[in-house]
Amino acid sequence: MKASGLARASATELARRIHAREIRAIDVVEDCLARIAEREPAIHAWAFLDPDRARGQAHVLDAGAIRGPLHGIPIGVKDLFDTADMPTAYGSPIYTWHRPAWDSACVAAARACGAVVVGKTVTTEFATFTPSTTRNPRGYEHTPGGSSSGSAAAVADEMVPLGFGSQTVGSIIRPASFCGVVGYKPSFGTLSRAGVKLLAESLDTLGAISRTVEDAALFVGALTGREELMSLPAVPKLRVGFCRTHDWNQVQPEVGEAMEAAARALAAAGAQVMQVALPQDFAGLGDAHGDILGYEISRNLAHEHAVHGVRLSSRLRELLEASRQVSSARYDRARLLARACRMGFAGAIDECHVLVTPSTTGEAPPGLDSTGNPVMNRVWTLLHVPCITVPVARGPLGLPVGLQVVGRFADDARTLAAAKWVHERMGN
Amino acid sequence: MKASGLARASATELARRIHAREIRAIDVVEDCLARIAEREPAIHAWAFLDPDRARGQAHVLDAGAIRGPLHGIPIGVKDLFDTADMPTAYGSPIYTWHRPAWDSACVAAARACGAVVVGKTVTTEFATFTPSTTRNPRGYEHTPGGSSSGSAAAVADEMVPLGFGSQTVGSIIRPASFCGVVGYKPSFGTLSRAGVKLLAESLDTLGAISRTVEDAALFVGALTGREELMSLPAVPKLRVGFCRTHDWNQVQPEVGEAMEAAARALAAAGAQVMQVALPQDFAGLGDAHGDILGYEISRNLAHEHAVHGVRLSSRLRELLEASRQVSSARYDRARLLARACRMGFAGAIDECHVLVTPSTTGEAPPGLDSTGNPVMNRVWTLLHVPCITVPVARGPLGLPVGLQVVGRFADDARTLAAAKWVHERMGN
Repeated sequence: MKASGLARASATELARRIHAREIRAIDVVEDCLARIAEREPAIHAWAFLDPDRARGQAHVLDAGAIRGPLHGIPIGVKDLFDTADMPTAYGSPIYTWHRPAWDSACVAAARACGAVVVGKTVTTEFATFTPSTTRNPRGYEHTPGGSSSGSAAAVADEMVPLGFGSQTVGSIIRPASFCGVVGYKPSFGTLSRAGVKLLAESLDTLGAISRTVEDAALFVGALTGREELMSLPAVPKLRVGFCRTHDWNQVQPEVGEAMEAAARALAAAGAQVMQVALPQDFAGLGDAHGDILGYEISRNLAHEHAVHGVRLSSRLRELLEASRQVSSARYDRARLLARACRMGFAGAIDECHVLVTPSTTGEAPPGLDSTGNPVMNRVWTLLHVPCITVPVARGPLGLPVGLQVVGRFADDARTLAAAKWVHERMGN
Repeated sequence: MKASGLARASATELARRIHAREIRAIDVVEDCLARIAEREPAIHAWAFLDPDRARGQAHVLDAGAIRGPLHGIPIGVKDLFDTADMPTAYGSPIYTWHRPAWDSACVAAARACGAVVVGKTVTTEFATFTPSTTRNPRGYEHTPGGSSSGSAAAVADEMVPLGFGSQTVGSIIRPASFCGVVGYKPSFGTLSRAGVKLLAESLDTLGAISRTVEDAALFVGALTGREELMSLPAVPKLRVGFCRTHDWNQVQPEVGEAMEAAARALAAAGAQVMQVALPQDFAGLGDAHGDILGYEISRNLAHEHAVHGVRLSSRLRELLEASRQVSSARYDRARLLARACRMGFAGAIDECHVLVTPSTTGEAPPGLDSTGNPVMNRVWTLLHVPCITVPVARGPLGLPVGLQVVGRFADDARTLAAAKWVHERMGN
């Protein structure tokens, strides 16, 4: 049996073939490890790798019964998620070689479903804005985005089919878009955060990076026991709201045009496309997001700031110090607005099944010193609604541009089905 | 300056005297340590104590400027909260001598305000139902309640004025009521859970145990920068709803009578007391709580179950295994009901400022093998509303009986002010 090419296959396809015993977990893992060995020196997607441990897990799986829907599937785990058998540094020199006492709930769930943890993928410093050295596989001199930089780059570069990500501002959607892959930020609270370093409890959302929408849905469906994600519903005539958001003025003209072209193409493909403007009070959500993030992150990283302040990047230290100025009154006002807008969102998008909107303001900017602008993501994160980015175009530099499909809270299955429909017709 | 008696003083009084430099932090700490040395052999409130470290912290504080509102105040930290300088075992033999890499956000905040961490207080196993050996200072052969057993016992026994607690079902209010002290479960999300072992993300709420309402408010106000808690508003003519809840049939007759007597006494003291019945759909919240707890805890303790199953108590192991049967559909239905009731709660209690309702079904039951019945607490935990228990009566065995004051979400200052008013008039 020839294993070559498995690293490029989808998780869904691999799972089907492993379940049918056509291929073995070790075949898939060896192919991924070979791809990693070839590409990692250029990409720097991994914070920690342990090939022999991955091989050992694969052999154990091959020798036993099928454990679950992810049996034998290699995954990358963002280095913000605790692992009992691998160091977890949260992207900070403070925790180099820190070894947690447990697997995070999501990693334990993935292992219980049969996934093989290949290693830890690079995160920016505590999933904030200070990048590591990961490169964008689509353009080495460009940022892969962040904070889930390593998971996006590893999946885009066909090192693994699935990676864990987390998003507090735009940390799943933005890197997935910049690297030309699929990113799925589920409805808030879908995946447990136990054993994942908390930044902002009101915002932090765990999710998946993959190359197909079906794979992201399979991953999250398996972890949560959600059958409706593991086999997505059929899409009837899709009603799509094209939403410019209150931050449209920050979108680069070429991306704006690509979005308009995508909307026309969706209509040509049979979707009913209408314009949707978010209500005026949603315009305050960007600032509200900043206030909530500031109030919470300055408390959640208080130990690191107090005890290890000199080992924080100056960018993060300044953010934490500025954030201490957010009063509890400002925080409460921001939370009230968020709560009201969450309640109003389902009504505000009217008869649409989903919205479409840019995933980012542009393609991945040049340079590795910034992870790009998350302004197109923060409002959806605060609204707690499911978001999926799919690559649909190329920017002026030839790099990927993503379309973001946004659904109602807890309507993940339909939102994913819509994103799959879009990706299959417009994938780029 | 004579230090004797300081262990019995309120945190508010101690803070005032330390700020005025009338007494030193070391005087307070020495008095608390003396009380602990005397009483701990009988009570077993502490999972870990380091008297010399506490003395060291006090000396450092005495030598410097006032750090904040808790300057020099000794506190007990529930052993579910990570501490960088003390082991944190979460009440489980799996983690004996586990040393976290950080202080939890709340502990870091307390230290930044000048608090002295005396030690770690006993928690039940992962804050669930399997107790440790802590005794109730009001009756040694009776449970102190749980899971915040050690914090309640230590505060009740005048070892420290303040203790951290956490509540997923009834783990702050019940032990505080059983031990005859004040317990304060703030509105959900008030205190950050970063660095605290998560059981059920939709439920886990951190809070305070103290001997006066003002102390609990000072503690949480200092940690969150909430001035309105540090100086509680005046109480106008209080409108109180007497609420039997849908679980009234589980309340022991003597407690029921004590509650009715308390309601009459409140009216005599000048409050306007009315009967409030929760709407019929709230009757499903008890089961919804169980489904949400089950779905979430079985995922959050998946690592411990998979890797260390034999070191879990059989009670917890059975709970986790039964909980795996809660489907995502049942979980989603429970969450939808909770969300709807949360939205409806403020309207359902009509023109009342607060509700009053029993803190527990009875006084602390005899024996140390159970922590008692949390049925009077679970619905309020799920509703995310602030609750304060104040001791107002004695049961047939002479042990304390608490009255629970429940407010609207985010209306903590008024709810605390009402509880203080009640406690001052009816405290027992």
